[in-house]
Amino acid sequence: MVRAKGSQPGSVERRLQDLGIQLPAAPTPFGNYVEAVQTGNLLFLSGMLPVVDHKAKYLGRLGKELDVESGRDAAYTAALSALAAAKEHLGSLDRVTRVVRFSLFMATHGDFFDQPRVGDAVSDLFRDVFGVEKIPVRLLIGVASLPLGMPVELEVIFEVGE
Amino acid sequence: MVRAKGSQPGSVERRLQDLGIQLPAAPTPFGNYVEAVQTGNLLFLSGMLPVVDHKAKYLGRLGKELDVESGRDAAYTAALSALAAAKEHLGSLDRVTRVVRFSLFMATHGDFFDQPRVGDAVSDLFRDVFGVEKIPVRLLIGVASLPLGMPVELEVIFEVGE
Amino acid sequence: MVRAKGSQPGSVERRLQDLGIQLPAAPTPFGNYVEAVQTGNLLFLSGMLPVVDHKAKYLGRLGKELDVESGRDAAYTAALSALAAAKEHLGSLDRVTRVVRFSLFMATHGDFFDQPRVGDAVSDLFRDVFGVEKIPVRLLIGVASLPLGMPVELEVIFEVGE
Repeated sequence: MVRAKGSQPGSVERRLQDLGIQLPAAPTPFGNYVEAVQTGNLLFLSGMLPVVDHKAKYLGRLGKELDVESGRDAAYTAALSALAAAKEHLGSLDRVTRVVRFSLFMATHGDFFDQPRVGDAVSDLFRDVFGVEKIPVRLLIGVASLPLGMPVELEVIFEVGE
Repeated sequence: MVRAKGSQPGSVERRLQDLGIQLPAAPTPFGNYVEAVQTGNLLFLSGMLPVVDHKAKYLGRLGKELDVESGRDAAYTAALSALAAAKEHLGSLDRVTRVVRFSLFMATHGDFFDQPRVGDAVSDLFRDVFGVEKIPVRLLIGVASLPLGMPVELEVIFEVGE
Repeated sequence: MVRAKGSQPGSVERRLQDLGIQLPAAPTPFGNYVEAVQTGNLLFLSGMLPVVDHKAKYLGRLGKELDVESGRDAAYTAALSALAAAKEHLGSLDRVTRVVRFSLFMATHGDFFDQPRVGDAVSDLFRDVFGVEKIPVRLLIGVASLPLGMPVELEVIFEVGE
């Protein structure tokens, strides 16, 4: 089979296959906003939630209704949505030249101090998908509440090329 | 009357008139900072508060001292300040080529999950003023406390042209 | 002594000397992330913590375990780490053409409303080091919890030149 150069899967798409990751459908808004805005070569995303098929996969706070492992899976779920939103905007994740930053806001209760372990669920996914040379800076913040009672919300800024 | 081309109000200024919106005076700082910084074609604003004439229009938390409607009006008030700050920096809001992102931080108490309804007060204003094609991405975050006890703080990034 | 032009300390490095400020070692990550990412002429930092030699200088929340003065020193400590991280990435802080924005997240308990006094510890340092014409916009946010129980986390975006 002859494949035109333009249709060869690039390294990111190949890595997703190798990792056995199938991206979910791109998320859709819970209000009057869009999921992605590009300005220059920066792609800003709306806060990604731990949602599957527009329904919350988790509700509750870390340190009360949810433990660290659930928090990690919620963060991973939101990160998959971020990849799906970016892919929908860009056509292909191979156009991502760098993950610039992510901010993970986690609804926490009381003395919850495991933010780094939860954040690493996002960091590790992005490293596996984009490669260690594109690892971003990050903010990890424990907050009082998030939309609709969800436990995490993920901000991502990508640098994109042609 | 003949009006020079340069002095015709553009679409944003006209929309403000049509909507009957009179922008407040540009906000002034509560400490050692400035209200707007432009870098390249991105305009970053300081956290906008629900302030009128440098005094809090609302104090308290959503889900305790304040209900959703008060939260929406507080967010709307902060968004008007954001427009006033941007106009003061840019000369005219017609120079805004896109609203890139806003982040609305809300002081919440207990099980408050109506962040989207509060956030839509900002989203709807920006859509009405700038048009549906300039709708931004957004983050909605419920937090423990905000400066001076105010219920909301609004971050905005604008993309600006000549 | 003859000093080659390229090795003359610029104004920022001189100001640090005049202020008697010795920057700490650049911070190192508490997980899978990097401390600084540059995209175009914007330098984004990871959330800076009040850390000395990779150990927390303060633990606790403002309004409970810590008072405003401790919060100010924690914020100042995080800001020194931000300068150290930027210097490590850029080679010299003289390449900073503007401090665009900082966001100071503070873990607070109950009715804590002194965010501006805590934030001014960062604002004043940046003004003293970079000059009044480079003062940034800022966000001050009181949150539920921060990584490892620390009281503050500082986001900074710098604009950088050649």
